[in-house]
Amino acid sequence: MNVDGKNLRPIWLEEGTGNIKIIDQRKLPHEFSVVELDTPEAVITAIREMYVRGAPLIGATGAYGVYLAARKCMDERVFDDVLDRSCRDIRSARPTAVNLAWAVDRMQASIGITGTASEKIDRARREADRITEEETENCRRIGEHGLKLVEAIAREKRGSAINILTHCNAGWLACIEYGTATAPIYAAAKSGIDVHVWVDETRPLNQGARLTAWELGKAGIPHTLIADNAGGHLMQHGMVDMVIVGTDRTTHTGDVANKIGTYLKALAARDNGVPFYVALPGSTFDWQLTDGLAQIPIEERDPDEVRYVPGLKDGKMTSVCICPADSPAANPAFDVTPARLVTAFITERGVCEATPEAIAGLFPEKAGHR
Amino acid sequence: MNVDGKNLRPIWLEEGTGNIKIIDQRKLPHEFSVVELDTPEAVITAIREMYVRGAPLIGATGAYGVYLAARKCMDERVFDDVLDRSCRDIRSARPTAVNLAWAVDRMQASIGITGTASEKIDRARREADRITEEETENCRRIGEHGLKLVEAIAREKRGSAINILTHCNAGWLACIEYGTATAPIYAAAKSGIDVHVWVDETRPLNQGARLTAWELGKAGIPHTLIADNAGGHLMQHGMVDMVIVGTDRTTHTGDVANKIGTYLKALAARDNGVPFYVALPGSTFDWQLTDGLAQIPIEERDPDEVRYVPGLKDGKMTSVCICPADSPAANPAFDVTPARLVTAFITERGVCEATPEAIAGLFPEKAGHR
Repeated sequence: MNVDGKNLRPIWLEEGTGNIKIIDQRKLPHEFSVVELDTPEAVITAIREMYVRGAPLIGATGAYGVYLAARKCMDERVFDDVLDRSCRDIRSARPTAVNLAWAVDRMQASIGITGTASEKIDRARREADRITEEETENCRRIGEHGLKLVEAIAREKRGSAINILTHCNAGWLACIEYGTATAPIYAAAKSGIDVHVWVDETRPLNQGARLTAWELGKAGIPHTLIADNAGGHLMQHGMVDMVIVGTDRTTHTGDVANKIGTYLKALAARDNGVPFYVALPGSTFDWQLTDGLAQIPIEERDPDEVRYVPGLKDGKMTSVCICPADSPAANPAFDVTPARLVTAFITERGVCEATPEAIAGLFPEKAGHR
Repeated sequence: MNVDGKNLRPIWLEEGTGNIKIIDQRKLPHEFSVVELDTPEAVITAIREMYVRGAPLIGATGAYGVYLAARKCMDERVFDDVLDRSCRDIRSARPTAVNLAWAVDRMQASIGITGTASEKIDRARREADRITEEETENCRRIGEHGLKLVEAIAREKRGSAINILTHCNAGWLACIEYGTATAPIYAAAKSGIDVHVWVDETRPLNQGARLTAWELGKAGIPHTLIADNAGGHLMQHGMVDMVIVGTDRTTHTGDVANKIGTYLKALAARDNGVPFYVALPGSTFDWQLTDGLAQIPIEERDPDEVRYVPGLKDGKMTSVCICPADSPAANPAFDVTPARLVTAFITERGVCEATPEAIAGLFPEKAGHR
């Protein structure tokens, strides 16, 4: 995406070294810092510690992690075993996002077991590039399909601004370009529709306040930051025309695991007749699970992420304790929004209802394989 | 309440000076600071800037503000006019809490227009004391009535801990003693029931993280701090047995204005069959309004309360910016939970359903006057 006149992605492969570079998203918006990853271990740390986050980007990063793992094991005799172990480690860096496992599986299938180590490394690099470009193209198409939904509301509202609420960051920082939830927003703004975005700050890690507000600001899209508590009130007063969120894993039956708090916004949307859309590439569907609430593992993260809030003070990044120092805290990172609360999915292949039949209708080749 | 072996209230009148002392709640839990108020202007600042907060405490503070105003106007000839003006200013220090207007009205009625300035000042002081003691007694009784609800769940759960979720701080810091939402919790703990409290941090001002966690910690009651986003997920997984919150204004038809985000928890409670209780003294009922969503004014506070998070760093209080410095933000401070989502009210006169008839049944003398 164009940021201050520079074309930027959250991950790229450096031609010279063959290493990976990423934006360290923990430091945004206060510091713009690029980190070089040259081993699968560095990739695992970057995923686990959330230098990178967002389902599609986690997938792409995992894919490049497999490439770095392949590059590392030059000994032909143990190549497959070593790579297999690395893949297992990468796959488990974060438990909720299904794209990570999907990307690693796809990398392994593409690398295969035939040929020399050097050939395998070549195949790994090409496949990681391909995954990245495909995700980019998917997001572009999600934007096209989502745009039609925004246009329909714009016609109803006859020129007044379309208010879109989003939770967390499912922007280009979470993907490669365009984003998932933000793709229809960027597309609408580009086509001249007057959009305004309510940005949930998204405690505890404030991806909305830090990343979505930064993205939208850089793109010149009108937006307003709000506490996560405020969305229901805004919907009650007709100040939200649609909700669009991303997802970390969605069952093929339509249950949506996304950042903690998404479920509360879906409830408020239903209670106020506001359409609730989930934007995702096909790679985020889980074709095995049928009951998101019972079956999707929810990552429990460090309680200090709740107790301490990082931010900028006098030009420096620091972090403050917001509660009694000895207060116990809990930090579930995701929740599951049941399919019944989802108006529709916006995918690269079009818009579909949150039912197994409609999802299978768009992705028949995946549905057939389960 | 007993804090570190000392008997403590959030407001008291100093015998010697006749001035008011309050705990500056903006600094808790990091600093324990007592502020002296000697003019109605100081009281207005303390209410507006949230040195004190919580509907019953705002009422008591407003009452003492009227006493300070009376004490200030010694000129008999203009006493009534000057007092009237002060009362108007105090009444409008915060728009949502009905207890403030209620307490000021009651003070004016009690002061009356007969007698000398000195007699009026005496009556003002006695009435402010009376309001304070009545609120204390109300909270004690709310605890007694709420205890029966907790006991009923305890019998069902046969000894396993009762998980109670609360939002914001409706503890003794928001009242005088016991609190409203916390009164049943303190009563249950005292009677030997195994309670555990999920404490919503309550962005943007973090009254849950700062005040409720501090109160419960000081009282030795097991509790866990969570992001406001987490409550729905916990309810989906059977980890919440009941929700109890306070309220800043409740229509006599049962609509509840409380801290922003309360409505989202009420929606989640209904979706998961979790009982949702609102604890309040009768003084919090508004006998005029019939439609909370349309009629209760919602205070819009400084957007910097969303952009900046205060907390402790290296033993000092500071505040960090959590978003791009130029990000627009909005800060509605309350929302309205419609009566249909409220299981019951817990009042000083007993428990009643959220219907005009049931509320009028408990407070017939008030209902008759509207």
